[in-house]
Amino acid sequence: MASTILSDCSSCATSRLLPLRRALHPPPPRFRPSPGPAPLPRRPLLAAVTPLPLLPRARRMAALSAAASSADSATVLADASAKIIDGKLVAKQIREEVGVEIARMKDAIGVVPGLAVILVGSRKDSQTYVRNKKKACDAVGIKSYEVNLPEDASEYEVIKHIATFNDDPSVHGILVQLPLPHHMNDENILNAVSIEKDVDGFHPVNIGRLAMQGRDPFFVPCTPKGCMELLHRSGVEIKGKRAVVIGRSNIVGTPAALLLQKANATVSIVHSKTKNPEEITRQADIIIAAVGVANLVRGSWIKPGAAIIDVGINPVDDPASPRGYRLVGDVCFEEASKVAGAITPVPGGVGPMTIAMLLSNTLDSAKRIHKFK
Amino acid sequence: MASTILSDCSSCATSRLLPLRRALHPPPPRFRPSPGPAPLPRRPLLAAVTPLPLLPRARRMAALSAAASSADSATVLADASAKIIDGKLVAKQIREEVGVEIARMKDAIGVVPGLAVILVGSRKDSQTYVRNKKKACDAVGIKSYEVNLPEDASEYEVIKHIATFNDDPSVHGILVQLPLPHHMNDENILNAVSIEKDVDGFHPVNIGRLAMQGRDPFFVPCTPKGCMELLHRSGVEIKGKRAVVIGRSNIVGTPAALLLQKANATVSIVHSKTKNPEEITRQADIIIAAVGVANLVRGSWIKPGAAIIDVGINPVDDPASPRGYRLVGDVCFEEASKVAGAITPVPGGVGPMTIAMLLSNTLDSAKRIHKFK
Repeated sequence: MASTILSDCSSCATSRLLPLRRALHPPPPRFRPSPGPAPLPRRPLLAAVTPLPLLPRARRMAALSAAASSADSATVLADASAKIIDGKLVAKQIREEVGVEIARMKDAIGVVPGLAVILVGSRKDSQTYVRNKKKACDAVGIKSYEVNLPEDASEYEVIKHIATFNDDPSVHGILVQLPLPHHMNDENILNAVSIEKDVDGFHPVNIGRLAMQGRDPFFVPCTPKGCMELLHRSGVEIKGKRAVVIGRSNIVGTPAALLLQKANATVSIVHSKTKNPEEITRQADIIIAAVGVANLVRGSWIKPGAAIIDVGINPVDDPASPRGYRLVGDVCFEEASKVAGAITPVPGGVGPMTIAMLLSNTLDSAKRIHKFK
Repeated sequence: MASTILSDCSSCATSRLLPLRRALHPPPPRFRPSPGPAPLPRRPLLAAVTPLPLLPRARRMAALSAAASSADSATVLADASAKIIDGKLVAKQIREEVGVEIARMKDAIGVVPGLAVILVGSRKDSQTYVRNKKKACDAVGIKSYEVNLPEDASEYEVIKHIATFNDDPSVHGILVQLPLPHHMNDENILNAVSIEKDVDGFHPVNIGRLAMQGRDPFFVPCTPKGCMELLHRSGVEIKGKRAVVIGRSNIVGTPAALLLQKANATVSIVHSKTKNPEEITRQADIIIAAVGVANLVRGSWIKPGAAIIDVGINPVDDPASPRGYRLVGDVCFEEASKVAGAITPVPGGVGPMTIAMLLSNTLDSAKRIHKFK
């Protein structure tokens, strides 16, 4: 069998040399290029979906070979026994489903979903995300609205634009591109978005409803819902299983834990103050790693057969790459793929799901507002 | 050493005979008398408090002897090695602190906190709770407002009263006594309470803020906050510790888990779908049991030295008691007290904390509204 090792986890100083507590709250990386779709929250299609049959091995190997030919890839083919959860493929499928539903809604009631994006400043990475979102909207038939404000815009200006979109019946989702400039209060701005149009699912009411039994949020943050979608469509059983979420951010870790709990997993959250993360993680049937530390989760952390969703997208130096870096996840794919039952690659795992979930959330919002089923 | 065994956990059919999954969602008990203060959510004093020195052993034993003389008590003196966390004493201390603060506020700005309670129907247990709340308010100087509506009142009537209290500047906390009659939608009614006066902390915005990093709720549900207060004031370290919460109700289990997580514990939630609750619970340094099953947590579930907060108040048949029943917790006190490092008794543990936290939440609300520090 071909053995192409592009990732050597043991050589990643970030995860190897730092004490774990520090590793879970690491210093910023030396450089931060503009990676592809990054972990920003959006929400998916219908909750229950038909499990996607896992890719046949030959196709997986071909997909991995293709991935391995890219310098960004951190996949390993040698002795890999885990099923590869192909996020690109699932995201494509979801985008197609969304496109079909939008066409059906347009035919039936003459409405197309509208998504408004507010971008403040001129960060290259934010501009790239917004451009990608627009392209993805165009492809499925969602109408995009965009506001670009200068870096020195006031909080009031941003909130004024949000208020206008809140009142605009052709806009069904509003998204404020993060991060905002330092002089702005994220909380004030995000809270200004109507909870009916909060396709990011960041509003405390949405998080509260996610946490509560017997309540459902209007929207679930896209990246964690994308993680769940990957589990569902890969046929991974969740109910009654032990799940560990590594990281407790508001946009990924916390909502991912709440979603797993709503799906009746027994959930533990590992974070920077956790004393024995390896030991706890090793008990998990399902691992969602969302901590932003390259290759933190080693093979020895993983219970044989576990399903692993790797949300991290971390650039590491790679002189062999034309860009001088490559992207790796929070999980050492090389080691994990030998132990796990299923795993998402980086890139090509969770990354492509975020925008797919955003499209899906926007469609859901339009259907709810127009009472279209 | 005296050996007075009033509780024999192994004789409790509810926990012994039911398969665990069923035990975690048990059928209703054969009878449900009106127990004393029951697990209803309220919120405490300031977050950081001076740890209360644990009671000296002689005093603990005396307290236990006194408790043991009551037929309601489920305490055991034989070989008990755990420190007893005396909820009655802590609650008394908090009520005194609240009283002092109210007097200070009244002197300084002439304002006393006001708490409005809405009671629908004529359930005996609800009437008892409301009466107890009123007494407790009177004792610390909180002005009580009470509305009693008939069982067949409409949702609209309840919401109208809530709206009136929302607008009344002399009311700083509004509490709708649960359970409401079946024809009412709890969610609609609880959401009508202004989040600034939601002293129960049940509003999704409050739960969402509790779940989110970098956000704080206006109010934390009283019973789980009472659990945290008992841990804090008993000198139990939380940061970096493993914590297990048994039960995931909106009013106790879920907010308790979120609070432990905010305090930097590594939290796992055990519930009716958990396959190996004993094994997971045995890893915990801190256990909060809030599932409502008599004596579910046995000695073998407990890590030596763990701190145990027992929220359950379960009536079990006891022909020897004048009432024909006695109250026991979710934890088998007899066994647990031999293994744990610290434990709350039932009654006299979490129970008295709920109303103390409600008073504290009402005071906090008045201070916030009147910007009094």
